[in-house]
Amino acid sequence: MLIGLIVAIAFCRSTRLLAQTDSIVYTNASSLYMSGKLFNTANPYQRIDTAKYPTLPAPVKRLLTHSAGLAICFSSNSTSISAKWCINKPLSYSNMTTINSQGLNLYVQNKGKWQFAGVAKPDNKKCAQAVIVENMAKGEKKFMLYLPTYNELSSLEIGVAPGSSIKSTANVFKKRIAVYGSSVTQGASASRSGLAYPAMLSRHFGYDFINIGMSGSAKMEPAVVAMVNDVEADAYLLDCIPNASVQQIKDRTLNMVVAIQKAHPGKPIILLNSISREQGFVDVKMGAKVLAQNKAVDSIANILLTRHTRDFYFIDVKDFFGDDHEASTDYAHPNDLGNYRFVQKLQPIIAAIFKKYF
Amino acid sequence: MLIGLIVAIAFCRSTRLLAQTDSIVYTNASSLYMSGKLFNTANPYQRIDTAKYPTLPAPVKRLLTHSAGLAICFSSNSTSISAKWCINKPLSYSNMTTINSQGLNLYVQNKGKWQFAGVAKPDNKKCAQAVIVENMAKGEKKFMLYLPTYNELSSLEIGVAPGSSIKSTANVFKKRIAVYGSSVTQGASASRSGLAYPAMLSRHFGYDFINIGMSGSAKMEPAVVAMVNDVEADAYLLDCIPNASVQQIKDRTLNMVVAIQKAHPGKPIILLNSISREQGFVDVKMGAKVLAQNKAVDSIANILLTRHTRDFYFIDVKDFFGDDHEASTDYAHPNDLGNYRFVQKLQPIIAAIFKKYF
Repeated sequence: MLIGLIVAIAFCRSTRLLAQTDSIVYTNASSLYMSGKLFNTANPYQRIDTAKYPTLPAPVKRLLTHSAGLAICFSSNSTSISAKWCINKPLSYSNMTTINSQGLNLYVQNKGKWQFAGVAKPDNKKCAQAVIVENMAKGEKKFMLYLPTYNELSSLEIGVAPGSSIKSTANVFKKRIAVYGSSVTQGASASRSGLAYPAMLSRHFGYDFINIGMSGSAKMEPAVVAMVNDVEADAYLLDCIPNASVQQIKDRTLNMVVAIQKAHPGKPIILLNSISREQGFVDVKMGAKVLAQNKAVDSIANILLTRHTRDFYFIDVKDFFGDDHEASTDYAHPNDLGNYRFVQKLQPIIAAIFKKYF
Repeated sequence: MLIGLIVAIAFCRSTRLLAQTDSIVYTNASSLYMSGKLFNTANPYQRIDTAKYPTLPAPVKRLLTHSAGLAICFSSNSTSISAKWCINKPLSYSNMTTINSQGLNLYVQNKGKWQFAGVAKPDNKKCAQAVIVENMAKGEKKFMLYLPTYNELSSLEIGVAPGSSIKSTANVFKKRIAVYGSSVTQGASASRSGLAYPAMLSRHFGYDFINIGMSGSAKMEPAVVAMVNDVEADAYLLDCIPNASVQQIKDRTLNMVVAIQKAHPGKPIILLNSISREQGFVDVKMGAKVLAQNKAVDSIANILLTRHTRDFYFIDVKDFFGDDHEASTDYAHPNDLGNYRFVQKLQPIIAAIFKKYF
């Protein structure tokens, strides 16, 4: 009889668990609006169709399959939001959380502002499932779910409570700002994908800052510049100096600016020099490298500014992380404090530029 | 001949690599001064000898074998600092970097201030080896190397360039402040161990904030309070409300304060209520839980304050993370922005208290 009872209890427990899991109703995220897209792509969660750009360097192609900066926009009256998702390879990086590289980050609109609502924690396995938030107040809400910054997403389903609605929203952003940059742009060392600086700028401006971040690989090669040029945008933010050698900066920066200007006349082009790499304050060689990079880009920018190049702007960002030396996770990548300070400094400057145009 | 050449090149390369690795001179870190110690322990990298505290709850024992808050203090004239270290189990957590949980974080003293100097990145394996910083300016410098926050360190060797000195420093801190708390105290979701809030306070004050953080397990059990009481300190900071249930707060908080007061007469005892858990602004139940915890502790604190309890202080920290909802990594744990804001708010208040005593 005791064994019967134990079996019965075990059965009830497993039935309840099954019922709980079963009760969530999942929707394929590819049927919902996605912000942050460079182009329409065959695989919705990749930033480019690599086959369309055969001459791109291999690391650039690989990195642009990562879903950095992409976000699913939807509305729902569900009091809970869940997700099931699969990534390509459960790689992890010592300088970032897997919540950022492989997980999901949900925001909800509250009184017209985007507010943190939760994260989906991955298991460092190919596929994972998580309740992102529950026990929300009743009523229809707008959500934005940021995708992994440093992995290729192969599938995503968004779960709501049974009987709840889930609908695609129209584009929530008014303008498109293309951001071509390095690992910092891609979102390295933000603790979650919503805290990468382009994502923060998107929410603050209500503009879609398109993430063309490519870790270690933003080197202004002609093929890459041509691809960036294919991204239709209302402004171009170029944060590509940290990865380039001094020679590459000298050889390629001017050509890049001129090429974008030619393809997108009348659109503001904003070039940033390199952020300081934190360890460069202690490692003399690293410090000298950043100084040399910035000396090279400063002189190119001076040429462009002296020529009164139309629609060209240059911003000196090297001190944007503050002076307490606490704004990095590792030798270089800004942590959440660093990205926050960067946005605090950059935002008013680019807002003043945007104001001249739209 | 070609094969011979390839073999010769391969041999030269491996010899050079070997020579580079060989040239670093390693010192067992246990021969150097360690800050952050609760007690002298048989295993230098653990916070307590668990055998001495048989009645502690099992998770508390396990968590206090983690090296959170411990740091090796040494001086050297080497232009590079390296490390070889082994941890117990290469566990990783989705809401923190492995640099924080398993890695090392070096600071160097510059004009009397501690400054970030580098990190040792782990490989998510038991043992790892890394150059933390190189190409430093010549001259004798003081260093502090923070140990992993969420793992048990089994061995550590610090490497310097051949012919360089490495010496233990005397204690660099003037006072000892015991901090009993939760995962936030232990350093969860800081991006590196030097950014856990007790570590930041240590550097800012020049006092040793002893990390008695125990993830999810700071519940004021009598056995734990007795262990905290065994820590000799100049002040006691109690950040133990987030993990405790309302009933535990009601049953245990007053007893804990009275016990510490009895064991350490004349030493300030500073009790904090619970930080807001970020997701509690969206998850109604989570929000209500924190409100109930804080209502319970506020009323205990009121009793103690109304009695004019000597040396007792209470700080309302619930809004210390700001109001932009960007200061957490996951549902609750402050990211580097959150820990930074927490320190900015907490520091002047406790500084004013300390001023009355030392």
